[in-house]
Amino acid sequence: MNLVTSVPLPAMPEADTPALLVDLDRVERNIERMQSACERRGLAFRPHIKTHKLPQIAHMQLRAGAAGVACQKLGEAEVMADAGVADIMLTFPIIGAVKASRLARLAERVRLSTVADSEVGVRGLSQALAEHGGEVDLLVECDTGFGRTGVQSPDDAADLAELAASLPGLRFAGLMTYPTQAQTAEWIARARAALAERGLQAQRVSGGGTATAFDELEGGEVTELRAGTYVYGDRACVANGTVPLDSCAAVVRATVVSRPTAGRAILDAGSKALTSDPAAGADVAGFGLVIEHPEAEIYRLSEEHGHVDVSRCERPPRIGDVVSVLPNHACVVTNLYDDVVVHRSGVLEGVWPVAARGLVS
Amino acid sequence: MNLVTSVPLPAMPEADTPALLVDLDRVERNIERMQSACERRGLAFRPHIKTHKLPQIAHMQLRAGAAGVACQKLGEAEVMADAGVADIMLTFPIIGAVKASRLARLAERVRLSTVADSEVGVRGLSQALAEHGGEVDLLVECDTGFGRTGVQSPDDAADLAELAASLPGLRFAGLMTYPTQAQTAEWIARARAALAERGLQAQRVSGGGTATAFDELEGGEVTELRAGTYVYGDRACVANGTVPLDSCAAVVRATVVSRPTAGRAILDAGSKALTSDPAAGADVAGFGLVIEHPEAEIYRLSEEHGHVDVSRCERPPRIGDVVSVLPNHACVVTNLYDDVVVHRSGVLEGVWPVAARGLVS
Repeated sequence: MNLVTSVPLPAMPEADTPALLVDLDRVERNIERMQSACERRGLAFRPHIKTHKLPQIAHMQLRAGAAGVACQKLGEAEVMADAGVADIMLTFPIIGAVKASRLARLAERVRLSTVADSEVGVRGLSQALAEHGGEVDLLVECDTGFGRTGVQSPDDAADLAELAASLPGLRFAGLMTYPTQAQTAEWIARARAALAERGLQAQRVSGGGTATAFDELEGGEVTELRAGTYVYGDRACVANGTVPLDSCAAVVRATVVSRPTAGRAILDAGSKALTSDPAAGADVAGFGLVIEHPEAEIYRLSEEHGHVDVSRCERPPRIGDVVSVLPNHACVVTNLYDDVVVHRSGVLEGVWPVAARGLVS
Repeated sequence: MNLVTSVPLPAMPEADTPALLVDLDRVERNIERMQSACERRGLAFRPHIKTHKLPQIAHMQLRAGAAGVACQKLGEAEVMADAGVADIMLTFPIIGAVKASRLARLAERVRLSTVADSEVGVRGLSQALAEHGGEVDLLVECDTGFGRTGVQSPDDAADLAELAASLPGLRFAGLMTYPTQAQTAEWIARARAALAERGLQAQRVSGGGTATAFDELEGGEVTELRAGTYVYGDRACVANGTVPLDSCAAVVRATVVSRPTAGRAILDAGSKALTSDPAAGADVAGFGLVIEHPEAEIYRLSEEHGHVDVSRCERPPRIGDVVSVLPNHACVVTNLYDDVVVHRSGVLEGVWPVAARGLVS
């Protein structure tokens, strides 16, 4: 069963394989769908640009009604500022004087919000901002169950908020968490109470993640949603039901370069074109879905070779055939390509540099 | 037990984390060791540049005595040619008129050898070369047990060699396989016999792989060795004994940005800085070795976060500490960075663009 129309891209050097292709018609539909879903629930929407790293798509998201963008690296935020994005949230703890100073300079030219989960982080930001004479909105990052960054209890959140509110250069703005989960609302409610005891208020509570973006639980305590992967979709999104297969907008085009046996095909897309990432949370095998041959399985990756089991294909691909691979995880794949080939339902629109990739930090 | 001296790099924006650091002293020692090992056994050595993608290191390898370089993509070969490398082998089957035409143009300016494992591949190369009036050395790729690309039997190898020898633009030069394995010598001997029956001879037999490079089995039928990873070493090389830990030349420098719990540290290096690749063939857990804290385990990667279990560390790292992570697989990590910070035992030498990364094909 093939649910995705193959993209008949014109043969041209710009699209020689392997190449990352992005369908702007589908991107627009995905943007519209998420923006509407947030607006229906009264949530501000802040798309995460780590997925596409493209100023052009950031502006499409903003034109559709986004409150601003989220970035995961300072370098991404600088590229977005250069491209005219006016409201940027950096959702990664900035540590060290070099980066804090860069952040302070960035705050001079955009409305900037950022996060911290430690006293070291809060004091470092404050010092750099005080030196530069700027201010940012500071959200305290809360670990509401994921087990990554974030303070570990509502009381710790309130203590760190109190410190931030007392220091120059920082406006305490609220709380941030990732991803929004079933227990997040209760955690945030307790943090609000702890903040109130200290005379503070979380005006913004920023939650995130494509996987839970359409769940009812996003309501309640969260005021703002961040999501990135929804804009492209990928094999994990298809598996968890957040993006249908026929809405997935980014595929890796690859050529069958060898058919050494009846059951094996080799693509010119390996771990340097698809990454070794699994489809997170999905019970699907292999390193991507070959859209034209859904019975095939990319069972192994060399750096430049994709090893495909085609033994279950009725009409297996031949040497020279070009296929479209839906990646397991779109965000890490974007990060491999200097350029993406953008089109609208197969009609070439251009080749865009992935402006925010490859940055040192 | 910490076998690797930490690199005391000066604090400067070029080396802000995450960054890929390469120690040229170690690179030189690794180059010398492999070149000597090949010369002792009378093998030509052809370093694979897919690991470093740097013209500077290619020239170090050539000055040490390499016969030429091997590339895994046409784009890599073009960059090496631009940088003055005169003898290039492209060890990937070229399929399609666009790439075959590029290959033919490349053959006008370097001594070029390449491989094929199919009639489609051989005929496509011949046609493009005949049109451009050039010639390349053609090696038939043989699957001697790995199960990737390559013809499946010695007779198939001889048949394809006979076709290549009959077509314009191609000089049949020999056989190629990857990796050299225990059964390779017997396979090649049978192919040599099949070639002799057709009046052909394999002057070059090119074997490869760092993992078996120092094994006795490289002798016998193979005349040339290709290896890439040996130049940097990585966690897989340490585990399989081919590169000692204190010879590993490439590390990702990362900063501890969060210590949310007593047992957890978070680095600013995730799957976009380290990749999700395992250490191939090695029985080691996690996504890299934290050299300053060998008891730590990088148990999970987000895109920009490395999740580290530090519960077994006597003195766990603190927020702001900078650590060096030995990657599981050096070649895919190189592919993520636009630049590498090169030094000699901690003294900065420069920042080199990874010239052969990010190419479309």
